[in-house]
Amino acid sequence: MGFSVTFLGTGAATPSLERGLSATITNIDQTLCLFDCGEGTQLQLKKFQIKSSNIQHIFISHLHGDHFFGLVGLLFTFHINHRKNPLHIYGPPPLKEILRIQMEMSVKELSYSTIFHSLNSDHFMEVCEDEKFTVTAFPLQHRLPTYGFLLKEKVRPRKVSHQFIENYHPPYTDIIRIKSGEDYVMPNGQIIPNQEITFLEPQLSFAYCLDTAFYPPLAEMVKNVDLLYHEATFMHDNVELAAEKGHSTTIQAATIAKMASAKRLMLGHISSRYRDLPSFINEARNIFPETDLAEDGMTITLRK
Amino acid sequence: MGFSVTFLGTGAATPSLERGLSATITNIDQTLCLFDCGEGTQLQLKKFQIKSSNIQHIFISHLHGDHFFGLVGLLFTFHINHRKNPLHIYGPPPLKEILRIQMEMSVKELSYSTIFHSLNSDHFMEVCEDEKFTVTAFPLQHRLPTYGFLLKEKVRPRKVSHQFIENYHPPYTDIIRIKSGEDYVMPNGQIIPNQEITFLEPQLSFAYCLDTAFYPPLAEMVKNVDLLYHEATFMHDNVELAAEKGHSTTIQAATIAKMASAKRLMLGHISSRYRDLPSFINEARNIFPETDLAEDGMTITLRK
Repeated sequence: MGFSVTFLGTGAATPSLERGLSATITNIDQTLCLFDCGEGTQLQLKKFQIKSSNIQHIFISHLHGDHFFGLVGLLFTFHINHRKNPLHIYGPPPLKEILRIQMEMSVKELSYSTIFHSLNSDHFMEVCEDEKFTVTAFPLQHRLPTYGFLLKEKVRPRKVSHQFIENYHPPYTDIIRIKSGEDYVMPNGQIIPNQEITFLEPQLSFAYCLDTAFYPPLAEMVKNVDLLYHEATFMHDNVELAAEKGHSTTIQAATIAKMASAKRLMLGHISSRYRDLPSFINEARNIFPETDLAEDGMTITLRK
Repeated sequence: MGFSVTFLGTGAATPSLERGLSATITNIDQTLCLFDCGEGTQLQLKKFQIKSSNIQHIFISHLHGDHFFGLVGLLFTFHINHRKNPLHIYGPPPLKEILRIQMEMSVKELSYSTIFHSLNSDHFMEVCEDEKFTVTAFPLQHRLPTYGFLLKEKVRPRKVSHQFIENYHPPYTDIIRIKSGEDYVMPNGQIIPNQEITFLEPQLSFAYCLDTAFYPPLAEMVKNVDLLYHEATFMHDNVELAAEKGHSTTIQAATIAKMASAKRLMLGHISSRYRDLPSFINEARNIFPETDLAEDGMTITLRK
């Protein structure tokens, strides 16, 4: 089962020709989740050739404009394109009315149903259960109520070891039985326990954490995550400005990744003031070497 | 005094990589007016290197999403950029609440003041008077209340004829007097009437007419306009679909231009279904030869 993350917009506050506004998409076996939807997201989806009709869930972290002003346009376009699949939207409670008041003039009735899920918990809480993954929301520390999200694969059926198949050439019907948990009975009656010839694939996970000030409790919530996408609006010489604005620095994002024992860190929501990106990234790598800078259109494949 | 019109977004309904959503900007001596503001307009302004801080007036024709979903993002960006100049916004009454409900979460108080002017007249009515021009709004025929706009230069101070200056070499102080309307008194006492040595520049005008079905009364409202920007969502084989959707065809737009004795017609709001643009434009030129197709980023200069 494939698992990839594509960054659609990696800038902060206002869009530039190089970095669009916040939007990130995950693709788990062709089920797409969109995290935030800044203005211009629908065009980024086209630009990066992502099949937006496969978006099933949209998560809005908070109601600063650069994270959601593109949502109503995307919903409108789904309607124009005659979407039929229901769409789940997760966001702070006022978002529902914000969407309604804008859509009611343009569209009498959408071609698809939307299911709005209000985020208003102050603790770690599962908000979405799909066939293959769950998404948990948790509060971040920003200037208004803001949520981070942890997308985690469910435990998947055990896979049959390639080594076993090569050694024993079992018939297909036996493979089906082994997959369902049975032991393997060899033609001579000898039994090989299921645990010895099957294995569990790791449950991959992705955490989306923007916008937030440096917030150490976050490390516990995303413990051992495979890919942490954490905002780094500023370099660390602006640590006081970052705190004042409810944002993080390179070093703070890297510190969270280190505390969480994340496998990999991507930085985003970068202020347009920064042009010397190697300096930017190196500041974080000094703390957490497995750090990279997200760019619009970049895809990280966790599993093919 | 310069007068130019730049098309920022010339597509219909949903944005494409080739055509953005409706937005057009006029530049009259560095005072900018924006007509409609579809999603992505602020990025188009950057792309085409237009100094958006010079926008003084924004006119929203109607509340279909492809004409106004970019407005709130532009207002937000003005704030981020510490705009100080007041901004006048003209649109259907519900727009005020739509903007408020979205902005209140992001911004406690904007860095600049906005003056909202409700459009709700059912006849031709001046809605904006600037130092150098006026803008008149008038109803169009669409699926919800929609306004067209006519921007017209005011009568300007008479200009002194170059021929007179070359022939008589009058001192600068005399030129100032002539400009203020006085006759010219030659050193020998002979008088040349002001009318003979000055002239009026034409009052240029631009009409913005989207979205609308074929609406013959419009021709009277934009009579003799220098540049008519009229929607042509469809080619004429879709004339019935156009009527059903409240849109116009190539031939209908050209017919309005002809009836109005417009100097020039630009077509926009083109459905993304059309790839054979020469056929599209020729259909209109058969009726009104001075027709062109608007493209994103194209500027028409009426006076340098």
